[in-house]
Amino acid sequence: MRASGQDVFGTERVKWMEIARQTTPELKVTEVYPVAVVAAVKDETAFQGWRFEPMGGLDTLSDANFKKIKSITLDFGRHVTGHLVFRLKTLGEVMDAPVKLKFIFGEVPAELNEPFDPWRGSLSRAWMQDEIQTVEVSDCDVRLPRRVAFRYLRIELLGGNYDFALDGIRCEATTSAGDIKTTLADNCPQIINDINNVSLATLAECMQTVYEDGPKRDRRLWIGDLYLESLAGRYSYQNHELTKHCLYLFAALTDNNGRLLADLFEHPEPHPQYGTYCLTYSLLYPSILLEYLNDTGDIDTARDLWPVAKFQVEDALCRLRTDNTFDASRAWLFFDHAVMDTEVPFQGAMLFTLNQTIELADRIGCGNQVEQWRNLTAKIRKGVRKRFYAAKQSLMVSPAGGQVSVHAQVWAIIGGILTPKEGAKALTAVLSKEDAIRPGSPYAMHYLLEAMLRCGMKDKARETMVDYWGGMVRKGADTFWEVYDPSDDYRAPYSFHPLNSYCHAWSCTPTYFIYKYPEVFQK
Amino acid sequence: MRASGQDVFGTERVKWMEIARQTTPELKVTEVYPVAVVAAVKDETAFQGWRFEPMGGLDTLSDANFKKIKSITLDFGRHVTGHLVFRLKTLGEVMDAPVKLKFIFGEVPAELNEPFDPWRGSLSRAWMQDEIQTVEVSDCDVRLPRRVAFRYLRIELLGGNYDFALDGIRCEATTSAGDIKTTLADNCPQIINDINNVSLATLAECMQTVYEDGPKRDRRLWIGDLYLESLAGRYSYQNHELTKHCLYLFAALTDNNGRLLADLFEHPEPHPQYGTYCLTYSLLYPSILLEYLNDTGDIDTARDLWPVAKFQVEDALCRLRTDNTFDASRAWLFFDHAVMDTEVPFQGAMLFTLNQTIELADRIGCGNQVEQWRNLTAKIRKGVRKRFYAAKQSLMVSPAGGQVSVHAQVWAIIGGILTPKEGAKALTAVLSKEDAIRPGSPYAMHYLLEAMLRCGMKDKARETMVDYWGGMVRKGADTFWEVYDPSDDYRAPYSFHPLNSYCHAWSCTPTYFIYKYPEVFQK
Repeated sequence: MRASGQDVFGTERVKWMEIARQTTPELKVTEVYPVAVVAAVKDETAFQGWRFEPMGGLDTLSDANFKKIKSITLDFGRHVTGHLVFRLKTLGEVMDAPVKLKFIFGEVPAELNEPFDPWRGSLSRAWMQDEIQTVEVSDCDVRLPRRVAFRYLRIELLGGNYDFALDGIRCEATTSAGDIKTTLADNCPQIINDINNVSLATLAECMQTVYEDGPKRDRRLWIGDLYLESLAGRYSYQNHELTKHCLYLFAALTDNNGRLLADLFEHPEPHPQYGTYCLTYSLLYPSILLEYLNDTGDIDTARDLWPVAKFQVEDALCRLRTDNTFDASRAWLFFDHAVMDTEVPFQGAMLFTLNQTIELADRIGCGNQVEQWRNLTAKIRKGVRKRFYAAKQSLMVSPAGGQVSVHAQVWAIIGGILTPKEGAKALTAVLSKEDAIRPGSPYAMHYLLEAMLRCGMKDKARETMVDYWGGMVRKGADTFWEVYDPSDDYRAPYSFHPLNSYCHAWSCTPTYFIYKYPEVFQK
Repeated sequence: MRASGQDVFGTERVKWMEIARQTTPELKVTEVYPVAVVAAVKDETAFQGWRFEPMGGLDTLSDANFKKIKSITLDFGRHVTGHLVFRLKTLGEVMDAPVKLKFIFGEVPAELNEPFDPWRGSLSRAWMQDEIQTVEVSDCDVRLPRRVAFRYLRIELLGGNYDFALDGIRCEATTSAGDIKTTLADNCPQIINDINNVSLATLAECMQTVYEDGPKRDRRLWIGDLYLESLAGRYSYQNHELTKHCLYLFAALTDNNGRLLADLFEHPEPHPQYGTYCLTYSLLYPSILLEYLNDTGDIDTARDLWPVAKFQVEDALCRLRTDNTFDASRAWLFFDHAVMDTEVPFQGAMLFTLNQTIELADRIGCGNQVEQWRNLTAKIRKGVRKRFYAAKQSLMVSPAGGQVSVHAQVWAIIGGILTPKEGAKALTAVLSKEDAIRPGSPYAMHYLLEAMLRCGMKDKARETMVDYWGGMVRKGADTFWEVYDPSDDYRAPYSFHPLNSYCHAWSCTPTYFIYKYPEVFQK
């Protein structure tokens, strides 16, 4: 396809970066003030064992001597992302020495109540949002340099001898989300309304200058999150310019081999994480571009980025085996945090991307470039069914050890390997099979819902949403979580539950389903 | 003199503040880089038990993996005041999580080696220069928000999992000092040269947008320091505009009663410390103005601020008793950290200010306004001698308990109460008197030197300078200290030796004496 060592997109990337720069969104800044002073209560029945109870004192805080108070916890009433601003208001005498304050920000109560040290998380200790600030000047605004994501804030006095009050405490909250362009049906059930609101808050908080995965952690753009965020955005903020910005960033940061990297960083200059190539994420790029085109009609962008989309699929097609199935080895194939054999779901992911890419090509008048893929998809479907579909059990089964996972059925449905009827049968079977591997994240749950709805399993889809995302709502979520296990509140991805990202983009898609299928969810 | 409740200077202060603003100096910024990686060595013979030994590694630091190093101490080779700047240089992989670093800045080795907590100082814990910074972006400059004053810096890794080097570590050092306009005699002895250099460094570091007392602590303008700094500045940086700026700031911030406050703060807007009225400091204001006039010939400024100078003296004259001595009660009369009866030195301070103010008045053509003071000074001198001078002992003695202090003799000399011959006798007597109260700070030592030189005690003055300031030099001082007790390295003003300000303006006057009396010091 190309000579070794050739730079596939060459200087095209410079042009794409320029367009990415031009489409960098402006952030809307809102000043969000605390709504209550709260006290932590240890409560075994509360999520992760802690809850906050409102106390009085907010009205008088800006005149109360913090030298005596020493420690206070504030509830901002909602999840916010931005910079904390405050001032020390002098009471009586002048400020004749600096003041040292500690700030601990938490998305959920446990982050303010579990000791961080000695550190036992498997990611950087610095993800925890505890900041120490020396304040040198009173009676003027101090803005903490770190951008934080939180609902709760504890402030502790570490040093300072003079009489002062904490005044004007607020968060300069940022988002690029804009206004919500849609409304739910009047008679929409309360729980769906609630789930929708939490979805919308989650998405808005992740929409910054890129679609971040989570504003607390990892604070960066991943292809997988971008896909789900752009879907949810269609039915809410409709900031398609942000999607365009992200599509161009990824294109501009492809490696010399033409491959998309799985994630990227914006600062100090946009750069990818070389070495983090995730094939299943790269294969979502054509879908994101197709959905963007459908949402905007912006055929110029679709044509401009078409080579990137097409290349990812072409590159993966070299994995095709003689029996018309795909080799899943030697690649990072992310479907979920759950550990499983990814070979079977990968077949579905390949067929899904082939179908989507052909559709995209046809939409932009490039159908001739993928002519040979049209017959190929039928052959692959046949080959995959032959090798992986156990018709007797109505299940997609991994040849290696006979492993059965929900994911395998889900992606077989999404890839069109199973008919809706077969898919419904397979999902019903796998969900009742005790030893089947189940979704371990909202990301995988999204695709399960998608598969159910493609198979017409409306009641089950609704029940799943109300159980799973509704479960987070009932446990007090303001925004949806990166990892949620209904049976284990302490389940977290990196060995320490406060490390979980409690506002995570890939969990925001209920709003997508609720609007796309009003007859299923809104009545 | 004035009706109660009247605002003495009224809107004049607005005009003075405007002039103060216009004369705010620009800071000169210099990038100062560390000169060595050092290791702390506990050593009973070293100042405060600690010294640093140079190690290798500075050349390779910007490529060394700090994730492995974890902690490093740097020596900047000189005292610097400013902002630390550095960057995290990515080695290999991208920075995929924030990094948390601790920075401990010290003017002397002990500040990096004595634990600060549990806190036992009697001033704010926040004076200690330990900062914790979360770094969110690599490969671009990070500037710590706090201005610090230090020579030594320890950096510790508190959190961060990726491979990075500390790169470009430097201090954006600031001063308004400018160039040194003077040189010493070629054959000036080494110890005098050394003392002079440390004096100059001390002064330059304290010269910021005001003459600070100390760039670590208290970081503000006091009248007492301003006086000594402007004297030392005459023979070095000659930034008389800075003196003018400070004179106007104090004038603009007089209280409604017309009184100068002892100190002031620049931020967020210039403001005095109401309630901190120090009579002996206010009485120095006419001297500062007179010296400024002598240095610059700027008679307009002297005339403009004359009412402020005159008022301080007039206001104090109401303390005159019928026996032509002054009542020293109900006032803060600062002469030194040493605890003593201030009544006797106060008599000298009053006479000194009267003489200086009359001289100032004559210089600016306002002699007629102080006509009645000319005879008064002679009467006061007589009254004071009668009440406080024990001719038999050749000493000024406090009537309350017969206390004898060096300070009482010093101010009697400076105020012209004693003749030079009597003064020399008194000083010789008091210094050999074991139970006499002695100077407890370089501030008081300055006036002792001044008094010695006024009495022609050249050898003793020189010996005193070499013993006292030379003692600090021999103990490794880069800048002179706020408090120094030759017999106790741990002596500190506020219960914890790292709280001492190791670069303190009031200790910078050797350079003034060295240049003013070249025949005493430079040969």
